[in-house]
Amino acid sequence: MTFRPAAATGMPLDEVDTPCLILDLDAFERNLTRLPESLRGKSIRLRPHAKSHKCPEIALRQIALGAVGVCCQKVSEAEALVAGGVGDVLVANEVVGAAKLKRLAELAKQAQVAVCVDDAANIHDLDAAMRAAGVTLGVLIEIDVGAHRCGVVPGAPAVALARQIAACRNLRFAGLQAYQGAAQHVRKVADRREAIARAVGQVQTTTRMLAASGIPCDTVTGAGTGSYMFEAASGVYHELQAGSYIFMDADYARNEWTESGIPQFEHSLFVWTTVMSASAPDRAVVDAGLKASSVDSGMPRVADYSDVDYVKASDEHGVLQLKGATRFKVGDKLKLIPGHCDPTVNLYDWYVCIRNGRVEALWPITARGAVL
Amino acid sequence: MTFRPAAATGMPLDEVDTPCLILDLDAFERNLTRLPESLRGKSIRLRPHAKSHKCPEIALRQIALGAVGVCCQKVSEAEALVAGGVGDVLVANEVVGAAKLKRLAELAKQAQVAVCVDDAANIHDLDAAMRAAGVTLGVLIEIDVGAHRCGVVPGAPAVALARQIAACRNLRFAGLQAYQGAAQHVRKVADRREAIARAVGQVQTTTRMLAASGIPCDTVTGAGTGSYMFEAASGVYHELQAGSYIFMDADYARNEWTESGIPQFEHSLFVWTTVMSASAPDRAVVDAGLKASSVDSGMPRVADYSDVDYVKASDEHGVLQLKGATRFKVGDKLKLIPGHCDPTVNLYDWYVCIRNGRVEALWPITARGAVL
Repeated sequence: MTFRPAAATGMPLDEVDTPCLILDLDAFERNLTRLPESLRGKSIRLRPHAKSHKCPEIALRQIALGAVGVCCQKVSEAEALVAGGVGDVLVANEVVGAAKLKRLAELAKQAQVAVCVDDAANIHDLDAAMRAAGVTLGVLIEIDVGAHRCGVVPGAPAVALARQIAACRNLRFAGLQAYQGAAQHVRKVADRREAIARAVGQVQTTTRMLAASGIPCDTVTGAGTGSYMFEAASGVYHELQAGSYIFMDADYARNEWTESGIPQFEHSLFVWTTVMSASAPDRAVVDAGLKASSVDSGMPRVADYSDVDYVKASDEHGVLQLKGATRFKVGDKLKLIPGHCDPTVNLYDWYVCIRNGRVEALWPITARGAVL
Repeated sequence: MTFRPAAATGMPLDEVDTPCLILDLDAFERNLTRLPESLRGKSIRLRPHAKSHKCPEIALRQIALGAVGVCCQKVSEAEALVAGGVGDVLVANEVVGAAKLKRLAELAKQAQVAVCVDDAANIHDLDAAMRAAGVTLGVLIEIDVGAHRCGVVPGAPAVALARQIAACRNLRFAGLQAYQGAAQHVRKVADRREAIARAVGQVQTTTRMLAASGIPCDTVTGAGTGSYMFEAASGVYHELQAGSYIFMDADYARNEWTESGIPQFEHSLFVWTTVMSASAPDRAVVDAGLKASSVDSGMPRVADYSDVDYVKASDEHGVLQLKGATRFKVGDKLKLIPGHCDPTVNLYDWYVCIRNGRVEALWPITARGAVL
């Protein structure tokens, strides 16, 4: 059920089978260093989100460049990361159900692990599960700062949960998660800045009320690739969770970036695909469809050809519209820039890592499919 | 990289971890028999598409009910099916590139295998690869009957390719593939019927020209769940490739079905999910997002609750809008009907098969991720 990689190390890119996920190592490494460099001189920690890459090889490289650890969304992702050598993982999400809480407790024996909460009954269950396992777990309260997904309303409801956590024998109040996910793909810099300014105000309200209740809050965590410089400059966030910066997908590339202070990241992640049909004059069909590149955030873009659009995806086919002079023949290979990197990565078992036109390494995506 | 199943056999459904893919065995078995029963008395073969289920357990059940074999889209899917005991597989798609052609030739030594073509150079490559392996392969010419994806224009271009195949020592002309994919989700019965009528005309033009050239065509294959009864009634199709009928996803359920002659299939495939956040009065958040249910054909539907809509998916979250009296608490579990079954199945390693509220079996999705 785990498929062979599409390539072997040393192989020229032209010979790499398709569709597969290729990582341009030079571009990737520039992205990898560019984000921590952009934070130089700022007193803020980086905890990149591993839900984007699902790969311990990448997490360890982020940590080597100064990240304090990584985030992930699922206990099974955390298990894969810890098994791959990552020592500090925040499950930046609510974890519900006896089976998962038990696994979370076991994991807390092997690594520094923390989790988010937004529900009193869930806090009770977490405490009971940690007590049964004889461990103490760091717990962050998630507040809803505009994404309208998980999280309690900022202010009093967060204070009430913090008091409850403080009274739990096997839980430790570890701070606030305040992730403004809805702001990340707002196109205009000014609108993203304003959305984060509102979130910052809500965080401040909450931390002031916590302080007034005698509950110190030493970690506020959040931010994504689209907004992280605003959280970094806010003075109230301590940890940044950006993840997509290492890959820079087509949807993020549609954001305006000028004057944001956020560096220009490069596309480093591609779907390598073959033209499998060229029987019509104005279209070609490639072998990468819905099962090779997620279309939830729009179609993939065709790299290197400005007169070719990927216009339609079915399960195993992508239809290219040939708007200009470019024509393909069956067997031609080309690169697609995925619309959304996270669910695209989740379709594959391997990164085929390319440098100077050859396969330098194959990195297993060990948290692929880790939904539990 | 293959994850543990979310359940063990015998476990009550309530205890099954989430998100996971559950199969209601009673509904599935009714769908499984309903399609072949609807063809009783018609002289037509069923070759269901396995790209929907990617599971030899299911393919073997289809064959036990009279299917002559299955279709799939990728050589690696065919390999997984043959490894699981399926003896007759049509790769209902073009296969391009030396590595894949070599694997296709090897597979043809183990099972009855055929493939589609729409390109002269590809036919040349196929013949060379089969000759190198010492096998003969059945080859079908794909014609474009309205889907505007792969396939040559019906008529003369198909005859030219058939002549070329007939001249190849290691290829055997095995018929026409005429799949009108674009018609499957056209909502109105009358419009689907008309689209298939046009396709039938194009097939007839082609088969007449083939006959006039002395090239008999004994197989015309195509059709999907949305239209198969029209192809079955046409008198020109010999094989039907419907696949989704076993699951019936939310997108297919939006079709009009009355007076089509196509039986009402039931939803048998669900994503089992847990409410992970209920902190706002008018929404709940479930643990199944983009990585648990593909949204390319619309959001999943919430089963059993008419006043609850799944309105927004992010990577690991689904936002439910509570339009009526229904309220959920954290930990409640519910069933989602996937928008599109094929790419949703491709996210999972296991079917958790349910009967009478308990896990009866776990079927591995051995062609999950089989894109090569």
